[in-house]
Amino acid sequence: MPTLSPQQLEQIHRYWQASNYLAAAQIYLQDNPLLKMPLQANHIKPRLLGHWGTSPGLNFIYVHLNRLIRDTAANILYICGPGHGAPAMLANAYLEGTYTELYPAVTQDEKGMRLFFRQFSTPGGIPSHVSAHTPGSIHEGGELGYSLTHAFGAVFDNPDLLAACVVGDGEAETGPLAGSWKSIQFLNPARDGAVLPILHLNGYKISGPTVMARMPDEALEALFRGYGYEPLFVNGLDPLPAHLAMANALDEAYTRIKTIQDIARNQTETGGQLLRWPLIVLRTPKGWTGPKEWKGKQIEGSFRAHQVPLMDVKKDPAQLALLEEWLLSYAPDTLFDANGQLIPELAALPPQGDKRMSANLHANGGQLRQPLQLPDFREYALPLDAPGITTGESTVQLGKYLRDVFVLNDKQQHFRLFCPDETNSNRLQAVFEATNRCTMEPVLGTDDHLSPDGRVMEVLSEHLCQGWLEGYLLTGRHGIFPCYEAFVTIVDSMFNQHAKWLKTCQELPWRHSIASLNYLLTSHAWRQDHNGYSHQGPGFIDTVVNKKSSVIRIYLPPDANCLLSVMDHCLRSKNYVNLVVAGKQPELQWLDMKAAERHCAQGASVWEWAGNDEGQAPDVVLACAGDVPTLETVAAAWLLRKHLPALKVRVVNVVDLMSLSPQAYHPHGLPPEMFTQLFTDNAQVIFAFHGYVRIIHDLVHGRPDPARFHVRGFIEEGTTTTPFDMVVLNNMSRYHLAMEAIRRVPAIQAEAATALAYFNAQLEKHRTYIREHLEDMPEITDWKWE
Amino acid sequence: MPTLSPQQLEQIHRYWQASNYLAAAQIYLQDNPLLKMPLQANHIKPRLLGHWGTSPGLNFIYVHLNRLIRDTAANILYICGPGHGAPAMLANAYLEGTYTELYPAVTQDEKGMRLFFRQFSTPGGIPSHVSAHTPGSIHEGGELGYSLTHAFGAVFDNPDLLAACVVGDGEAETGPLAGSWKSIQFLNPARDGAVLPILHLNGYKISGPTVMARMPDEALEALFRGYGYEPLFVNGLDPLPAHLAMANALDEAYTRIKTIQDIARNQTETGGQLLRWPLIVLRTPKGWTGPKEWKGKQIEGSFRAHQVPLMDVKKDPAQLALLEEWLLSYAPDTLFDANGQLIPELAALPPQGDKRMSANLHANGGQLRQPLQLPDFREYALPLDAPGITTGESTVQLGKYLRDVFVLNDKQQHFRLFCPDETNSNRLQAVFEATNRCTMEPVLGTDDHLSPDGRVMEVLSEHLCQGWLEGYLLTGRHGIFPCYEAFVTIVDSMFNQHAKWLKTCQELPWRHSIASLNYLLTSHAWRQDHNGYSHQGPGFIDTVVNKKSSVIRIYLPPDANCLLSVMDHCLRSKNYVNLVVAGKQPELQWLDMKAAERHCAQGASVWEWAGNDEGQAPDVVLACAGDVPTLETVAAAWLLRKHLPALKVRVVNVVDLMSLSPQAYHPHGLPPEMFTQLFTDNAQVIFAFHGYVRIIHDLVHGRPDPARFHVRGFIEEGTTTTPFDMVVLNNMSRYHLAMEAIRRVPAIQAEAATALAYFNAQLEKHRTYIREHLEDMPEITDWKWE
Repeated sequence: MPTLSPQQLEQIHRYWQASNYLAAAQIYLQDNPLLKMPLQANHIKPRLLGHWGTSPGLNFIYVHLNRLIRDTAANILYICGPGHGAPAMLANAYLEGTYTELYPAVTQDEKGMRLFFRQFSTPGGIPSHVSAHTPGSIHEGGELGYSLTHAFGAVFDNPDLLAACVVGDGEAETGPLAGSWKSIQFLNPARDGAVLPILHLNGYKISGPTVMARMPDEALEALFRGYGYEPLFVNGLDPLPAHLAMANALDEAYTRIKTIQDIARNQTETGGQLLRWPLIVLRTPKGWTGPKEWKGKQIEGSFRAHQVPLMDVKKDPAQLALLEEWLLSYAPDTLFDANGQLIPELAALPPQGDKRMSANLHANGGQLRQPLQLPDFREYALPLDAPGITTGESTVQLGKYLRDVFVLNDKQQHFRLFCPDETNSNRLQAVFEATNRCTMEPVLGTDDHLSPDGRVMEVLSEHLCQGWLEGYLLTGRHGIFPCYEAFVTIVDSMFNQHAKWLKTCQELPWRHSIASLNYLLTSHAWRQDHNGYSHQGPGFIDTVVNKKSSVIRIYLPPDANCLLSVMDHCLRSKNYVNLVVAGKQPELQWLDMKAAERHCAQGASVWEWAGNDEGQAPDVVLACAGDVPTLETVAAAWLLRKHLPALKVRVVNVVDLMSLSPQAYHPHGLPPEMFTQLFTDNAQVIFAFHGYVRIIHDLVHGRPDPARFHVRGFIEEGTTTTPFDMVVLNNMSRYHLAMEAIRRVPAIQAEAATALAYFNAQLEKHRTYIREHLEDMPEITDWKWE
Repeated sequence: MPTLSPQQLEQIHRYWQASNYLAAAQIYLQDNPLLKMPLQANHIKPRLLGHWGTSPGLNFIYVHLNRLIRDTAANILYICGPGHGAPAMLANAYLEGTYTELYPAVTQDEKGMRLFFRQFSTPGGIPSHVSAHTPGSIHEGGELGYSLTHAFGAVFDNPDLLAACVVGDGEAETGPLAGSWKSIQFLNPARDGAVLPILHLNGYKISGPTVMARMPDEALEALFRGYGYEPLFVNGLDPLPAHLAMANALDEAYTRIKTIQDIARNQTETGGQLLRWPLIVLRTPKGWTGPKEWKGKQIEGSFRAHQVPLMDVKKDPAQLALLEEWLLSYAPDTLFDANGQLIPELAALPPQGDKRMSANLHANGGQLRQPLQLPDFREYALPLDAPGITTGESTVQLGKYLRDVFVLNDKQQHFRLFCPDETNSNRLQAVFEATNRCTMEPVLGTDDHLSPDGRVMEVLSEHLCQGWLEGYLLTGRHGIFPCYEAFVTIVDSMFNQHAKWLKTCQELPWRHSIASLNYLLTSHAWRQDHNGYSHQGPGFIDTVVNKKSSVIRIYLPPDANCLLSVMDHCLRSKNYVNLVVAGKQPELQWLDMKAAERHCAQGASVWEWAGNDEGQAPDVVLACAGDVPTLETVAAAWLLRKHLPALKVRVVNVVDLMSLSPQAYHPHGLPPEMFTQLFTDNAQVIFAFHGYVRIIHDLVHGRPDPARFHVRGFIEEGTTTTPFDMVVLNNMSRYHLAMEAIRRVPAIQAEAATALAYFNAQLEKHRTYIREHLEDMPEITDWKWE
């Protein structure tokens, strides 16, 4: 039963020609956009950049999805995975008029078309891969591997959305993509939308073949059936039969999706067998419809079609003629009128309004974003009588708060927690009073809080957690990603790309604000004493701190009340990446909620109670950022007060790391006078830092006399040991800090000998004790402020 | 046909009991190791850490591999993928005597056993996951996802080696692991060894179920057949039939592997059908043989068996009794004699000498390492008459050198290049004169330099490249990993773990030296002007710079001759991670080979010809690191000489980044007097840096007056533009540098007005020009030193 009438078939083919023409012309032409004149060298751009190879296949898929939308009114988001696929996506956005709506200078006429071609991959123009500039996209095509996880993130809690996700055979080789197929085990057809993966096999990467394109159909069929899909094969060598096959495959896939959803949503009788989700395998030549060969070497269907198939057109008249022949093969004069407007017959073909994939509302998800309902975080405060005597677990308190975030947003269904199997391990288990872990696999009696409608997405893949969350946020929802600190660096590069996306969006007025991406690193370097050296790595801060200051925020709340205040702020914020580092272990609490709010609002402040400078010029400043450094710093100040009361010590705690930075570098930088109020202009500063020392060295560069900042932090010393031994190994213990403070104040040396000897002896005692008792000395573990 | 005699079966079972006893006892006991006395609370460690859940399965596999080795004399490397699997691997190394050979204090008697238990997961002891401390391991079990890629890397060019790789069902969820199955498409049975993956499904992670364990056998069968494996299923609920099934499966797998190798190596008739590689799917309960339940809650076979199944044994006498019952269920008094020695009957069971998996030579690969034969790099020098007038492509020269490295080591077969489909793109294509890309898939007429015996491993997966290379190096071979700079951050976390491994090995005298891991980042941030913002990210330097200074080296050779000198040094070095950043584009060349060697040996030097201070105290120092910053810096000095000759400028180039660091932080740090010779103690320094500015801020912290260093570098500004516009956007152009130099010398301001106006006008002219012409101004692209 053919899906397409002969007339439809012809129109679809001609629309495809139009998009192929626009894709190819973007790569080459700076002038003569409609080829009204014979093609000349001066019509060619000075530098030829772009990727033709994948474009005709992407266009092919696009026009067929258009047909499906017209026939079914489906709400389809096009996720373009193949690298450098922008020529195709831009061509379609231009044909649909969306491009002109968003970039009015690029009109749908000859002049606009010229500009459209000129801007592509040229200075100050737009990239050759799909990016934030591309209408209809939530996905960057620069770094490969994340299309499928973005697609799943987009359709979670979007029951009417269908993400058609084109996966290139290059991208399919990456680990993150290979790990994404299993996402269907987390997709609930009753409440979520659907993903239709379209694996596009065109055979080659830059110069080598792709693994999957060389696999026989039987192997691919087995593979995807194993993953739980029903693969449908489309072979795209000869265009006309390919059109028919593709239309049929899409119809079959769509019917199958609707049936699965219908069964799940309406409890239709199933005969006991859940249908497999469809997946399309599309084989086409690389650079399909492009030049067949040049000087005896095959182009179409080979790696030579990957980027610019004819590189010497500007210099070589024969190549130029071949290019002209190629471009004219699409018969642009029959597709566009003399003004450069798409002929009405073709312009009527794509869907209209926000049914256009380039105008899909979800692709500019900020416009659909509803604010998150948040409880008053103050209600989850840990009550304190005084600083440093009560013990509490920061993330346990936060878990209760997050539980109620789930409760308050139960109707909206727009908040999820993404976590690599560590919700309990991160001590956020209170959320399971409100929701479950999500799975679509069988639930057994031995399982704990597991169900298909769970809103906690646990999977042992940081890549999936990050990608799902990105897709979820980019389509206008909210979320949080708790992770072990050492292992969040697994997604360094994904974070990089998301931060770049956010920065680019700031320059695009039509992109609506989305919720911030919130990391919560609870199992952090200092308290991975039990798991050992491989689990001890605070390097993610270094990755985050380098990104654009308008995008990144870094918080190191020292206790539970600060964590609550910070996280409330993060969940309300937009367009940032918020990195929050806070321990999960029982630890001393410092600030009551009022003080915590004040402290967090300011970013950094003097803890008067911990110092003894009494507002006078201190001999030395003990500064700290991070919960463990804070404990050691306060204890160091306490030791100094007891053993060397003559030394005037000030304690400064930093919760907002970027407050240290000069304002020119980060908007959160403290004003110079405030910085001086905290750190003075000339006192020696002993800074105990959660991460690698170099960040502080950098942040204070540009502040008065940066050389006076002496930083202790993680210096890659660690093993399986005790919590206190971790700070000893890295020279950041209370004794180390106290001794360094003394060392930096020449006037105090004479009086300090006894204190120094005592501190050194304590370190020695510690080393002996843990060897004998396999745990820390009681005077360390039981230490409190007094 | 049963593989095992009843006697063998019993012995294997008892040996398994012995290893299970040792695994469990490591977690709990600090005393009473043989349970000669009734178990008391004071025999229990103060802090219970360790992972029981995976251990019995790992032991089960171990004892069966032992049997296979004894029966076949196979050379087997055990790669232990599951997280925290050390109790099992340590137990076996201890039983085999290897542990005592390497750690003589841990004797094979009661006293040694007590120490063996006490050190496990205790302060200053050894981690609960497989690590460099673990005899027989090349694989860290801390961060999950890399076991299979390590296994393949280990067997490349090791035709007689079989890597038995246990993949946990938690690890199997990660992207990198999911992307590793396809490695068989790159494994040549004629020249490489074999990998036998053993997928161990025990159902749970920390608290949630695993995806694969819930997949029915048919789905797993389809999946792995799709990947090209022949899965063999072993169901391990009841131990005795499980032993028989496992022995049969291993025999079948081994026969199949030998057959595949025989066919490939001896051209035996195949009937035209290549056999699939075997893979074992082993299902066992989590915490198999451990306690069944506690207070009505199931332990064995549930997530509660993941870590320490009974946490309160020290306080709760009933739990303590259950622990004792559990430990005694292995009947330790029948396994070990009164002195704690394994009874002879069992001690005779495992293989001997270096057939023991814990003593496999490849697992301490440095002892097999043969030095790489290197050509004289000087022969590949680009001849120069003077600095800054000849154009050359650094990586093209390097490609010729690497080609000859392949040629010279053709017999040894111990060098490979690992690259995410970018060998050509990185302009190293000369290597294809000596070797090919590797594939085991069909080779077509449209392919370029592709064959099963290729030594260039191209796959679009940075994870696979990194993991294969790590496995290759750790087993004593050599290699290099060229990569796009922005995308090498995909393996940030893998690099972190490898650097940690190397650092740990420095503390283990029995670990032999291995070849350094060499990164070559050629397609770097500044020259990704064509690919756009997503391709512009120099952050990998930040990741590397934080690791232990005894492990990491960072080089930024400014031209071809420096690159050759640096790379020759890197390929000779051991136990480092060498990061080399060098552009692939045609660019001006600065130093002839003699000067380049001197410059690289020193790490940083004054380029007298580029400055005009003539050995006097300069007004300002223009410093640079990286090829593009070097070009801009030299051009800035040239501009200043022309437009403001009164300003005395010195130019310093830094090729070894860590030479900037105080010696206390890095062994390559320049001595203080040398640093002063280059940078003076007080001159203002304008530093143009390849990466993010903060690294320089940090490195000069501790040098005289760090505040005088004014750094320009990548500030996350970029788009699709021209090469020169990239430096303009990031305020690092020659004009910016020249103006900053002027700004920092108060005495020169009056004379400088004309020059400043000219520089500003040039920037404006540039901006206009690229908009109109879509390329850089000729006076920029054609600039040369004169």
